[in-house]
Amino acid sequence: MIEGHIYKLFDDELRELKEKILLEGSLVERAVRNAIEALQNRDSELARRVIANDDLINTKEVEIEEFCLKLLALRQPAAKDLRFITTAVKINYDLERMGDMAVNVCERVLDLNLEPQLKPYIDLPKMAELAQMMVKRSLEAFVNEDIQLAWKVTSDDEQVDRLTEQIFSELLTYMSADRKTIARAARLLFIAKYLERMADHAVSIAELVIFLVEGRIIRHRKLSEKV
Amino acid sequence: MIEGHIYKLFDDELRELKEKILLEGSLVERAVRNAIEALQNRDSELARRVIANDDLINTKEVEIEEFCLKLLALRQPAAKDLRFITTAVKINYDLERMGDMAVNVCERVLDLNLEPQLKPYIDLPKMAELAQMMVKRSLEAFVNEDIQLAWKVTSDDEQVDRLTEQIFSELLTYMSADRKTIARAARLLFIAKYLERMADHAVSIAELVIFLVEGRIIRHRKLSEKV
Repeated sequence: MIEGHIYKLFDDELRELKEKILLEGSLVERAVRNAIEALQNRDSELARRVIANDDLINTKEVEIEEFCLKLLALRQPAAKDLRFITTAVKINYDLERMGDMAVNVCERVLDLNLEPQLKPYIDLPKMAELAQMMVKRSLEAFVNEDIQLAWKVTSDDEQVDRLTEQIFSELLTYMSADRKTIARAARLLFIAKYLERMADHAVSIAELVIFLVEGRIIRHRKLSEKV
Repeated sequence: MIEGHIYKLFDDELRELKEKILLEGSLVERAVRNAIEALQNRDSELARRVIANDDLINTKEVEIEEFCLKLLALRQPAAKDLRFITTAVKINYDLERMGDMAVNVCERVLDLNLEPQLKPYIDLPKMAELAQMMVKRSLEAFVNEDIQLAWKVTSDDEQVDRLTEQIFSELLTYMSADRKTIARAARLLFIAKYLERMADHAVSIAELVIFLVEGRIIRHRKLSEKV
């Protein structure tokens, strides 16, 4: 009876861990959304808010890490649960980094807002939306141990790569046409890079999920082998 | 007696874990060194070798992760050792990413080698050397639990930031002066960014070490508060 009770408790704790990760993920998603809104609307106030709110994500990261350590120490989980918790440790680490990416985007937005807007933004918001969706899906894949969804995230990354290429070549064209655009175009280039990195983190999470569920080491195989 | 024997064994295993991490670190250092040598000497052959050798780092990562899981499952370590092992899990994750950065540098080098060299490289090799040293030091700090050295790594990062700024503004000057340089300058800009990210990973490792030893959450404090 007592043992059953302990397992019940552990299940609750794992569920709590999942909820904590999802909450942290929603903070990260909001940060990305606001960062790109700050870019589109030239809203420096919002950019500064995203930067300030990063503390919340950081606090969550520490809290989740402590929770994982507590579970490892007190419950001494075996095989599958052990891997689940160490995966959570790494996902938590990825999420915190994604928060930093949103901050980096906002820092560039603050610079950009000191000068006239270079061009209307079309591909960058698309990319941000995609990155945000990938974060959401990768975490859903984690909590539901949904392999299909995890694979979907890894394939979404191709679209991110295509958008990056497109933005890259468009901005180079601007730079070539008018040297006065160079500094601004370079900042936009960096924003594209930050969004690409964010998507990379989501792919890492998805790959952790696939490894968790299938025990297959896909993180280090080429995409061509995956399909 | 038997218990003493088990502890002895666990100590050996922790030492083995440290050695594995150092070995992986030395592979990463070599990758960075070769990547920048490939850039300086326009050596596409070497660049391709770095890209191919990344598999070695990936294999090490998987091996270390499995080793950590084994230690967690079999030894069920308490407090301090538990934190040590989960820190190793994260450092391992950082190292693998750093290997990816070296690959990214080499991919750009391959593109660059298709065109004449834009300029002699001075700051980029400096930055690469710095990043490489930071990787080395952050891992030394980890295995020796050396707080002073870890702090040193976090302060080295300011130098990396300065170099990035410098490279950035120099390349923008090239771009402005001659539009034919734009594509190449942009690739060099990305190489600087990859090196900056590599240094960021080293700082993350150093911060993990400080947290491990002091139990202080410094990762989320501003540099100004640190000093």
